[in-house]
Amino acid sequence: MADGHDAPLIMGIAGFGTVASGLMHILRENRAEIEARTGRTVRVKSVLVRDLSKTRACPLPDGARLTRDASDLLEDPEIDVVVELIGGTRTAGDIVRRALSAGKHVVTANKALLAEQGKDIFALAAEKKLHLGYEASVCGAIPIIRTLREALAGDRIESVLGILNGTSNFILSEMSDKGMDFAAALKEAQSLGYAEADPVLDIDGRDAAHKLYLLIRLAWGAEYPYSAMPICGITGVSPTDIRYAREFGCRIKLIAYARLHGKDPWNGGIEAGVCPALVHESFLLARVEGAYNAVRAEGNAAGSVFLHGKGAGDLPTGSSVAADILDIAKGTPPDNSGFAHPHLPAPARIIAPHESFSPYYLRLKVADRPGVLRDMAAVLADHAISLAQVVQKDDAAEPVPEAESRAVPLIMVTHRAPEDGVSKAVDALAASPFVHEKPVRFRVLTSKTGALPNLRTKV
Amino acid sequence: MADGHDAPLIMGIAGFGTVASGLMHILRENRAEIEARTGRTVRVKSVLVRDLSKTRACPLPDGARLTRDASDLLEDPEIDVVVELIGGTRTAGDIVRRALSAGKHVVTANKALLAEQGKDIFALAAEKKLHLGYEASVCGAIPIIRTLREALAGDRIESVLGILNGTSNFILSEMSDKGMDFAAALKEAQSLGYAEADPVLDIDGRDAAHKLYLLIRLAWGAEYPYSAMPICGITGVSPTDIRYAREFGCRIKLIAYARLHGKDPWNGGIEAGVCPALVHESFLLARVEGAYNAVRAEGNAAGSVFLHGKGAGDLPTGSSVAADILDIAKGTPPDNSGFAHPHLPAPARIIAPHESFSPYYLRLKVADRPGVLRDMAAVLADHAISLAQVVQKDDAAEPVPEAESRAVPLIMVTHRAPEDGVSKAVDALAASPFVHEKPVRFRVLTSKTGALPNLRTKV
Repeated sequence: MADGHDAPLIMGIAGFGTVASGLMHILRENRAEIEARTGRTVRVKSVLVRDLSKTRACPLPDGARLTRDASDLLEDPEIDVVVELIGGTRTAGDIVRRALSAGKHVVTANKALLAEQGKDIFALAAEKKLHLGYEASVCGAIPIIRTLREALAGDRIESVLGILNGTSNFILSEMSDKGMDFAAALKEAQSLGYAEADPVLDIDGRDAAHKLYLLIRLAWGAEYPYSAMPICGITGVSPTDIRYAREFGCRIKLIAYARLHGKDPWNGGIEAGVCPALVHESFLLARVEGAYNAVRAEGNAAGSVFLHGKGAGDLPTGSSVAADILDIAKGTPPDNSGFAHPHLPAPARIIAPHESFSPYYLRLKVADRPGVLRDMAAVLADHAISLAQVVQKDDAAEPVPEAESRAVPLIMVTHRAPEDGVSKAVDALAASPFVHEKPVRFRVLTSKTGALPNLRTKV
Repeated sequence: MADGHDAPLIMGIAGFGTVASGLMHILRENRAEIEARTGRTVRVKSVLVRDLSKTRACPLPDGARLTRDASDLLEDPEIDVVVELIGGTRTAGDIVRRALSAGKHVVTANKALLAEQGKDIFALAAEKKLHLGYEASVCGAIPIIRTLREALAGDRIESVLGILNGTSNFILSEMSDKGMDFAAALKEAQSLGYAEADPVLDIDGRDAAHKLYLLIRLAWGAEYPYSAMPICGITGVSPTDIRYAREFGCRIKLIAYARLHGKDPWNGGIEAGVCPALVHESFLLARVEGAYNAVRAEGNAAGSVFLHGKGAGDLPTGSSVAADILDIAKGTPPDNSGFAHPHLPAPARIIAPHESFSPYYLRLKVADRPGVLRDMAAVLADHAISLAQVVQKDDAAEPVPEAESRAVPLIMVTHRAPEDGVSKAVDALAASPFVHEKPVRFRVLTSKTGALPNLRTKV
């Protein structure tokens, strides 16, 4: 407990939605624990809303008042901390900047804001020597921000990867467990409240990329604009590929990954992206179900540290907001540098597709005739891609008018190959007269050493 | 980064064994990262050893000197931090107390010391307003101390449980994967360096209990002397039970568990213990392999947070020691209260066996004759224990001289029952003339709600 901080910590909260209600519930319900741990009371003075008359699911904290005027938070000298929970990037960015400029600490759950405007906002917080708490913006209740910032402070981080979007993971889990197609699983996610009415940021991978930007900044003190990241969402994942992946002993998960090349991000580089990938069931990441999130960070001393927890929701996200507020209450000094000198991190060298290696899963629909497999393998060999496994299925149940036009699935898993080589090879395969549909490809997640997991071959 | 702390942080290290060598390696190899993150250099000035002439696997840090005199660390005004890595409890306790009394921060990996003398040592650190860093003493590289202290600071902790001893987990994993018996798996662990020459603290559950004591103190700010904990090690786990457990879809793991009853440890209470338990494979804990550790903490807001990583080793443990040192370097204020007011936590009410409920796995060897199952079920019913599943195996392969004396395994899984009731029922079963051997029993780990997992019935 921090001594000499017996005055209450006074907060203004911008927003009164799900997370704000969760936070208020936590502050009320766990008041005794919070006071014992920090030696202070934590008090909400003002809550900024758009509509003063709207009925709220959660009672206003004792002594707090609603206001429609942001100045009531930003210009009140009694307020120590502004908690930004309105979402979006325009008004939220304005509030966060004004709060920092006015000398107030900021806690936010807004990954989109920090991914888009983080460079300036982090610099402002560092310049003003103020807290900018954002644990809640990445993976809800999972303490990945403080794990990277504190627990791994003595490590060189080698990689950070994980399942950073609960909506996508819920959809893929439903498709995998119940055999649903994408549209049905999305509808299910929406009816259960896991997906927004407009779920596009979740399912196209951008939400995960926003979070990955923040993790890269913290792990390596380097800027990697999320707009420069290769991003692929889950709309291209079909029940067919989920089924074949399972037969290999794998699940398909939306993986956000970042790896250090060399010893630092400037002379070496950062390889990063978001894409669906086959994850072997021997990895804990394959076991992340439903709306849960998980992150695996690799340090050169700690080894692999794996964290799993609820990725969203009023109380889990509120718990991380509360933790950041309590850091401030305890008198912990701000640590906004994102690990780097000077305060503004330099841009990382971005690893290009020809330097980015992975094994790949490829699925083709090919003419069922002799020599096709040989021809396909030759195309891959021409692009210097070697095969780890090939399985030609004969389960095409559709009736076919004549033997010539019968198509069968051909599933191949490659050894590690560069991304651009695989792209060119897939284009060449697609151009073959014996390939009937656009080939499907996914990365296969490897172990730390880059080794292919021990795939089952009963496909 | 902490500003205004540009002077180097000067350390004395007591001990030059595995973890000390790991720490020195990290400080050298990751020097650039550490300086970028803290804005300071971290320098080792003195290393306390017993034998000055012994050859060391790791070079002494630049500018450091070996000494046999503890006063060179404890009375040197230049030294800010004493890192205690000698192990044992007598000399180590003396060094830690003298260091704190002399106004020096302490970082230690010594769980036995803190479990035995923690009450006084924590009080001394709190009184002196000094850091007592002990992340490395619980689960190697897993950041469970800072997760409880910081990430869950706004939560009421409902339970903390996990696999806290890597040696035991390695042995159980080998028995499970390779069908080894206990003695062979222990020998394997020793030959690979996972088990000490004298592994008794690891395999009898005491090492896990030491760590659990520290987690309870931090989660609830309450004392629960580890000597008062029910502790059972893994020597009673047989390949037979591992095999039956697998047929139910479970692994047997050495689980350290602590649960809050009511809303606080004084009016409610703490239920805690260390014992082998059946863990269903749908739980991530069942997937913890080899020498890895894992902890699951449940908060009333965060929900379940699961952490997994390397439980021991020079670099993983050194990584956590480094993290605690870097907290000090960054100027983070000490937080030694263990969450409670006043600084000395009050003893928890200890939940007695008749209040401690769990489902149980029971294995009997019974006479193969009609009515035996009915009689056994009647004994359990007399003790108000109801059965969830009963399986009578007929796989006793031994030839038997006459039908009368043939014995078959009877495996039962109970619904939630109080520990003392199960003990009495097991004693009554053992006294039955139809029961051939001492009955075997293990707890079955339940979900947060206390529900029995969905056991397979193909046993």
